[in-house]
Parts: sequence; C-alpha cells; structure tokens
Amino acid sequence: MSQYQPPLKDVSFLLKHVFDFDRHAQQCGFGVDSDTALFIAEEAGKFASERIDSINRSADTEGVRLEGSTVITATGFKETYRAFSEGGWNGLRFPEEYGGQGLSAVISTVVDEMWHAASISFALCPMLTNGAVEALLTAADDDVKSMFLEKLICGEWTGTMNLTEPGAGSDLAAIQTKATRQADGTYRIKGQKIFITYGDHDLTDNVIHLVLARTSDAPPGVKGISLFVVPKYLVNPDGSVGNRNGVHCASIEHKLGIHASPTAVMLFGEEKEAVGYLVGEENRGLEYMFVMMNEARFSVGLQGLSISARAYQHALAYSQERIQGKAVADDGSHGKTIIRHPDVRRQLLSMKSKVDAMRAFAVYLAVQKDIAHSDSMTGHARENAQCRMEFLIPVFKAWLTENAQHVTYDALQIFGGMGFIEETGAAQYYRDARILTIYEGTTAIQANDLVGRKTIRDEGRTALMLIESMEHSACELREESDASGRALSSQMIEGCAALRRVGEWILGKHASAPREVYAGAVPYAELWGTVFGGWMHVLRLQAVLRTGNRKESLHATALAAEFYSEHILARTSALVSAIMHGGASSLGFPETEWLN
Amino acid sequence: MSQYQPPLKDVSFLLKHVFDFDRHAQQCGFGVDSDTALFIAEEAGKFASERIDSINRSADTEGVRLEGSTVITATGFKETYRAFSEGGWNGLRFPEEYGGQGLSAVISTVVDEMWHAASISFALCPMLTNGAVEALLTAADDDVKSMFLEKLICGEWTGTMNLTEPGAGSDLAAIQTKATRQADGTYRIKGQKIFITYGDHDLTDNVIHLVLARTSDAPPGVKGISLFVVPKYLVNPDGSVGNRNGVHCASIEHKLGIHASPTAVMLFGEEKEAVGYLVGEENRGLEYMFVMMNEARFSVGLQGLSISARAYQHALAYSQERIQGKAVADDGSHGKTIIRHPDVRRQLLSMKSKVDAMRAFAVYLAVQKDIAHSDSMTGHARENAQCRMEFLIPVFKAWLTENAQHVTYDALQIFGGMGFIEETGAAQYYRDARILTIYEGTTAIQANDLVGRKTIRDEGRTALMLIESMEHSACELREESDASGRALSSQMIEGCAALRRVGEWILGKHASAPREVYAGAVPYAELWGTVFGGWMHVLRLQAVLRTGNRKESLHATALAAEFYSEHILARTSALVSAIMHGGASSLGFPETEWLN
Repeated sequence: MSQYQPPLKDVSFLLKHVFDFDRHAQQCGFGVDSDTALFIAEEAGKFASERIDSINRSADTEGVRLEGSTVITATGFKETYRAFSEGGWNGLRFPEEYGGQGLSAVISTVVDEMWHAASISFALCPMLTNGAVEALLTAADDDVKSMFLEKLICGEWTGTMNLTEPGAGSDLAAIQTKATRQADGTYRIKGQKIFITYGDHDLTDNVIHLVLARTSDAPPGVKGISLFVVPKYLVNPDGSVGNRNGVHCASIEHKLGIHASPTAVMLFGEEKEAVGYLVGEENRGLEYMFVMMNEARFSVGLQGLSISARAYQHALAYSQERIQGKAVADDGSHGKTIIRHPDVRRQLLSMKSKVDAMRAFAVYLAVQKDIAHSDSMTGHARENAQCRMEFLIPVFKAWLTENAQHVTYDALQIFGGMGFIEETGAAQYYRDARILTIYEGTTAIQANDLVGRKTIRDEGRTALMLIESMEHSACELREESDASGRALSSQMIEGCAALRRVGEWILGKHASAPREVYAGAVPYAELWGTVFGGWMHVLRLQAVLRTGNRKESLHATALAAEFYSEHILARTSALVSAIMHGGASSLGFPETEWLN
Repeated sequence: MSQYQPPLKDVSFLLKHVFDFDRHAQQCGFGVDSDTALFIAEEAGKFASERIDSINRSADTEGVRLEGSTVITATGFKETYRAFSEGGWNGLRFPEEYGGQGLSAVISTVVDEMWHAASISFALCPMLTNGAVEALLTAADDDVKSMFLEKLICGEWTGTMNLTEPGAGSDLAAIQTKATRQADGTYRIKGQKIFITYGDHDLTDNVIHLVLARTSDAPPGVKGISLFVVPKYLVNPDGSVGNRNGVHCASIEHKLGIHASPTAVMLFGEEKEAVGYLVGEENRGLEYMFVMMNEARFSVGLQGLSISARAYQHALAYSQERIQGKAVADDGSHGKTIIRHPDVRRQLLSMKSKVDAMRAFAVYLAVQKDIAHSDSMTGHARENAQCRMEFLIPVFKAWLTENAQHVTYDALQIFGGMGFIEETGAAQYYRDARILTIYEGTTAIQANDLVGRKTIRDEGRTALMLIESMEHSACELREESDASGRALSSQMIEGCAALRRVGEWILGKHASAPREVYAGAVPYAELWGTVFGGWMHVLRLQAVLRTGNRKESLHATALAAEFYSEHILARTSALVSAIMHGGASSLGFPETEWLN
C-alpha cells in the first residue's frame, strides 16, 4: 500500500488562487489567514497519513465484533481515536463557547477530506458526532446543551443518528419508535433502530444517541416525529458518567464495505427503561433533522471526494511502479511502467479531472456555508449563499458519491488482476465507496429533492442564478485563454443552455406529468453535477491564468480541463435526452413483462 | 434470496422468432429443432435453479480453504458437481467421438448463461475445463487427446489454464516458466503460475493443467512460448489415475468476489519433477492459446450477461415486494411496493434493456460460431461468419462485462441500505461481477485488439460489413414500425454514422498518431457495444412486429427499445468526442503534475 499523500498542493492552490481565502476569511470575520489554514491542513494531513491511513487496511480485515452488547473496534482504533480527540481535531468548526475552535468551514472541509481519505470507517465516528452536535446546537435547550455539548465537541463522547427502522428507511413518515412523556419532563423511548453507524463501540465512555420517535399523541406522518437524546450511560449532575441507560446494541451487520465501522441494530427500552431528553419542541424532530441532514449530506459528498482522491493516488503510485508490456508507439521516454500505456493514462486523467472538480466543489460549498452563517455579511449576501448551498447540496451528495463509484472502479482496474486481491487495497476502496450513494439519502432521494424542493419550489430562481454565474465565468474564460480554454468555455455554454432547457421543461411539465419529471430526476442531478464540475475547471483555469503560475502547472490545469470537456461535459446531450424523453418508457412498462 | 428464474420465455422468443433456430440448425446440419433446444434449456434451467443457485450464497460465505496443498470447496459443491457431470451437462458442444453431444453453440450458449447466472464461482470450473478441451481439440496429437479428452469432456476430470506469472499478466511475452525436453519426448516443467482458477480442488480425482512455458532453446518473446499439459496425477496406460505429478497449489488468494472459486498459486517442479506433454508443436503455444482465448473471452462476456440477468431479477423481485414511501403522483394502481417509484422503474428498465440486448448479442455470436464451424455451409458463408465473430468477440467481452458492473450496481441500489448488507445477496453479484472486466484480458486489452487486429488489420472491411448489416435493419425497421420504432431506427442510423466516422478516423490516424488512436480504444469498444446492442433491439422489435405477438409483448419490446435509444444510444456523440478528441490531454499530461 502506498502511504496517503494529503493534497496540500491543491488545497493551497484552491485557497490562495481560486477562492481567495484571505479575503473570504476577513469578510466573514474569521481570525485566520490562508497560511494558518494551510498549516492546520498540513498538520491534519500528517495525522491522517501516519495515524489513520496506516491502520485502514488492517482494520478492514479485522473488522468489528460484538461481545455481549459491546462492540469492540479494530486494533489501533482506540489509541488513534484518543490521539485524534486529544489533538483537538474534533471541534474545529464548532463555537468556542462549547470548547470548539470556531474555524471557517473551508478549513474543516479540507481537513475532513483528509480523515475520510485516510479511512472512511474511522472518520465516520467523528462525522456522526458532529451531526449530533449540529442538531443540539440548532434545537436543544440549555439544559440538554450543557449536559452533552462540550463532551461531544471535544470528542470525549461520541454521537449517533438513530433514524432508520426496518419499515422506515427512505420514508421517515413510517417511523414507529415510541416516546412517552414522564412527570419529570423526560421521556421513555421504546423501539428498534437499524443501520446505526457507531451505535456502540469501545472508543469512549459514553455514546449519545439522537433518536427520532413519536410521542403518544403525535399526529401521523412526518409531522408527528420528535427528536430525543438518549445517552448510553445517564449523566450525573456533575457531568460524570452515571448508570447504564436502557439502550443497547442487539447485533451488528455483515457488510460489503466499511468493515471497521460498526453498523448496529439498537434496541431502546427493551429490558430496561430508556431515558430520553426531548430536543427542542415535540413534533418538530424532522425539521431539526433536516439541519443535520444537510450537514451529513455534505459530509457524505465529501467522502465521495476523499475516497476518490485516495484511490486515485493509490492507483497512480502503482502505475508508476508496475512494469508490464510494451506500450503502443512508445519512444521509451517514460520508462517501462504501465503509466506509458495510453489507456492507463486515460483512466488516470479521468480520475484526476473528476477529483479536481470535486475538491473545488467542496471548497465552493464551504465558502457559501461560511457566508451564510457569518454575522459580518449582509443579509442579502447570506441569503444568496444559503440559497446556493441548499440548491447544491443534493447535487454535491449525488454527483460526488456517484463519481466515487467510477473513480474507485477505474483505480481497481489499473491494478488488473492484483486489484481483485484484497491485500492490494484497491478492492477496499471500491467496497467502501459503495455505501456512499445509499446512506444519508440515496442518489434518487437527492435527485428528487433537487427537482422538487430545490428547482420547482422557487420556480427555478436559484437554478437560474447559478446558471448565470456559470455562464459569466465561461464567457470570461473565452476572453482570457487560448484554444483549450475556449473549447471548455463553449462546452460550458452548451451545458448551461442544456440546464436552462431542462429546467424550463421541468417547470412546465411537473404539474401535468409529475411522474415523467421525476423519472428524469437522477439524470437531472447528474447533468447539474457535470456542468457544475465544468465550472470548477473554469475557475481553476482562470486562477492559474491570472496568477501566472509556472508553465507545467498551467499546462496540467488546461489538460485536465480539456479532458473533462471532451469526456465528461460531452455527455450533456445524452443526459438531456434521458431527462426529457427517457421517462415514458419505464413509467408505461407493462407489469407482466418485467420478467423474461 | 429470490430463486433463480431461467429466462425461458426470452430464449424461446430469440430462438423461434429473432434468430429462426429451426432454419439455422437445419442449414448447419444439427439434428435438433427449437423445441428440442428449449427442452434442453428448460432442464438446464431446473438444474441451475434448484441445484446451483441454491448454494451460491452459502458458498460465497464459506469460501474455499487450503488443507496442505489440497483445496477444499464449499459445502454442496462436490455433490452438485457430480450431479452436473453425471447429467451430461459438461460436454454439450463437443464432438460425439469423445463423448460430447455435438450440439449447436446456440444451445450451449443459452445453457451456459444459466450456469453462470446461478453461480459464477461454480460455473467457472466447467468453463475452464471446456477451455482446456478446446485447446486439446485444436492442437493436441492423438496420444495426448486419448489420454485426456474423454475424461475432460464428461467432466470426470477438470482443466485449467496456466498463463499468468507474477511478471507476466497482460503481457504473455514475459513468461518465464521453463520446459525441458526429455529423451522419452515428455518435458519437465519448472516455474510458478498465479491466478489459476480451480488450480486445485476436491471435486474430481484429477486436474489437468494447460501450461504456457518456454523450452530451453526457444526464441524470446511471444514466439518462444509452447503449450503443455501437466496433470495433477499422471495417467496410467489403462487411463486410470496414477502417481502424483510434481505440481501443487502453494496458496490461494483472498479475493473481492467469486469466493467459492479457488484462485491458486501453482508451483511446477518445485519439490518433485513435473511431467508435461507438449500440445501440438513447440513455440506455437500462443497461437493455440488464442483459439482457447476467443472461447474464453466469449464465455466471460456471457458471464457478464448471466450475472446481469440474475442481479436484475433479484432486484426486480425485491422491488415488487418491498413497501416504502409514497410514490410521486401515484394513482394507487400499482400497489404499495417500491416498483411504483419513477426512479426504481428507470433503473429496472435500464437493467432490462441491457440484458435484452446482451442476450440477443450472445445468441447472435453463437449463430456465427455454428456457421463458421459447419461443414454444411459454403466457404464464403463460413468465412463471413468467422470474420464477424472475430471482430465482435472483443466487443462482446468488453461491453457485456462493463455492462455487468452497471447492472449489478443498479440492482444493489434498488435494495437501498439492505443492498450493502451481505446477507441480501445483491452485494455478492456486485463483487463477483468485478472480476469480469479483468480476467481473460482487461477491457483495455479487448479494446486494443478491436482497434489493432480487428479494425486496422483488414482496413476496416469487417467493421464496414457489420455497419452495413445494421444500417440495413435500421432502414427496414423504419418502414415496418410506428413512431417508437422510427425513433430507434434514426438513432441507429446516427450510431452507424458515428461508427463510420470514427472508423475512418482510426484508419487515417493510426500510422501518424498511434498513441492517440489507442487512447480512444476503450470508448471505441463502448461505441461498438452500444450501437450493436441497439441493433439487437432492432432485431427484437422486428421479430415481434412480424410475428404479430400479443399486444403486451409488442408494447414491452418497443418500450425497452425506446429506453435503450433515449438513455444508451443517446451517448454515441459523447463517445465520438472521447475517441476523436479525448486522447491528447492524457497523452500529453506532464509527469510531475499527476499528484496534487
């Protein structure tokens, strides 16, 4: 296994040249500049590479096991987690009043990329904890906040999200877990939750579950769901860990990937009462969850970038090492390794051009997130950033996680037969990546959100605002650059026209033929991701042109953009066909004819 | 797990209506009609479903293990294999003089689809045996034939292909295993082979290895490779199993998929001399291997169809059972299961329209194979069929196995979170499928073959002949059908034009810019697969129009073709861009800039 190389060069390019982090941080009132940000990224990169990446392979092989009702994690996880939380890596983006570091989302994003790149299984634990923190910050009262927040933010305890039940997966309206209010204001929770990531483990003294449940008099459907905190151990008045609460792990799943991350079936109030504390108000649980979910969807999208970047560099290292075959018309200048072969290069640049676009997309969204939450910005700027962010999160989640499938596929392919052997590690990235298009809302769920809540609800206003931004950059690029930039520019103008055309079609059609519109939802999300990714290449190319970077770097940026144009943006017309003409056939397919 | 449903309805449609098997069998001199063929398919289907499919999941979990140097297969494999060979399923297509049944390749193809659909791990054993038989039939002298052929054809012994070495994967020129000629005309083989499928097992009394090696005075490179038979146990003059030969399994691999199929490291002549028998003449080993390889590539392509068809029906059954969520604008007519959701239907028809095209492609090739080998056909017809088959085999292997990745991906996705849990079985199809684009030549190897040996070598003649056949059908369809057929027809005409344009580009460019041409090889193979798959939909639609089938069936065939047009054929322009403009960027990418 090659060791993980944190993408410090690219992060520096993005922060200094593409997104002008210094100006951004100042405008948003963060007291850090890009050099500090890069220093933090560098330190994180060391930890990710030396401590986390180094146990990713062995932890996958070892997996997790259940002893009684306690999950035992893989060798090294406990020590690494302790060093991680003691190093202060857990609370980067949270408010200082609860022990966080109040840093820019840009910094936490580039750092989070590294944790996930080093090990998705490991990084899921702090990721889920952060989700729980987000929910408590959003909605909990001061008592609940003071009971849990500090310990979660410093990582002394970890958090979970308990949403799914056997009959309630994508459809949270079907949740059946019950919450009964007690005289003391607490609740008793009773029910079963499945697919609970880090539902139990041995990394910390306590596990804090955020649980969706229904109170006895709740209205049916999503309007009757409330959010509760149910700690594994009750908390004493002095904040120390008290008695065992009535929640335990009944079993763990045998999964395709992320073997070192426990996925638990959790039972609440089975043998013993499970004490829960209401978060915010009754029946508003789903609303709070949506705040968390946006965060979580962003994080899972980021995992798509991370595992792609990691799998890419793993395959790259192999292609620069492995000697095999004569390459077509090779002049010998590239040595004897397989990176000489035209198709290996095609696959490498396919991976790289996606990774480049995805990383810029992640930073773009983090910038919007900072702006949306900054008191120093005008209301209009904040609202604009919030709109962009909300529109783009389903695109980000869907597109990055689908990309991760293709990139980890190509990465394995470069290893040939060795890729199919588990020891090589390429197979693990391929397996681990497979969950990404499923959890936190499948690609179809993201796509439906993009069509319904994001495109139709505001009658296409946000979509249009983004399209105009993209067109503006594409036109600028046409003026600024040479032939290769102009090719990208004109492909982008076509891509934007495709988005306009499809957007108008959706707005015109959804009332009369909603099923046809939704049959095109997934290709619609892909079209958005594809064109937005093209925009990220435009911004990269503009940045490198403007900063007069050294020749090699300009050349590489232009070639990655050219590849993206010719291979990926070139697909827009096929996606338009799938969206606008592709629905009728599957919707009308006769039920008796599915099976041959 | 849903039980495997053999595709008897579709096989019947293809044999009776699309490919007119009765006429074909008569012309080629086979003494069977379509009813007999379908009877055989039905019996095979029962065996595949009841005996093989039923142990596929448990065998994956159990895997194989090495005891000493003997591989122990999963529970049930031994009994099932015995029943399989005793049932005569092994020798369907081989000459009757060696105990085979001399049946049409069409029959063995539809039957082989079922074995692989039920369990790739299981079916690999007879598949490799058949490869060995093919090589011996092609090149061995009578002594060698009489020593091994009958036992291999009846399945009493099994065969392997020993090609790969640690330094010789895609590049067979690098083979180092040595063969030393003895006074008695036998050879002593010494070396190590890796990735040997069923290199050892407990299913039969003997394992017959076909081994590529170099004699001491062999010229370097591929012109110095000879083919040998090296049995695990020597064969006594009376044909019974004799002493142990000096070949043994040193270890088995821990793989991503096909866990129940042992992948062995084989040592020849390590502790004991390994006696080998030359097949054919010295230094012609690669030539013989190519005969086998064409067979093996066809079989692996078929595995792509098989696992796609199986994963599709597995997901279909789940989508008709699982209740989740409200579907968009659903009128309640489809019940409450997830097949109501527009995106689930999109995925199902995406899978089905590919499976339909792939199965027709398989039968089309089997028809060509029969013709090419039939003494009853004219030389011209045989040659024409041989050309078509040779041209199309890399397309078939590349396209079907790449399709299998997408189909097993979609199938898993329909299961949502349950798909990621191994018990569900969807993950196994996804894992098992992953080897298909690697073994028997990666997709890039197929694509390079298609460009070099298949397109350039005959200056595009075979390509053009096939394009003309496709255009002819597309024009016919335009006359015969209503709107939906006309849409497919015009997409096909465009697809054929794309193939012409790209073919001319390759022929004009390969001398001056070979690396650019080969950088487009994989998209070129995909373009061929895509358009050829469209042709298969044309033939299906024509058949159903001509035979006046019942309305539902016509409707379904037209809708599957429409989906294929709008979603898959629609990608041709993107592929043309990737082929003709996509090479320069990756070829020119500066070496210092790959890593961010």
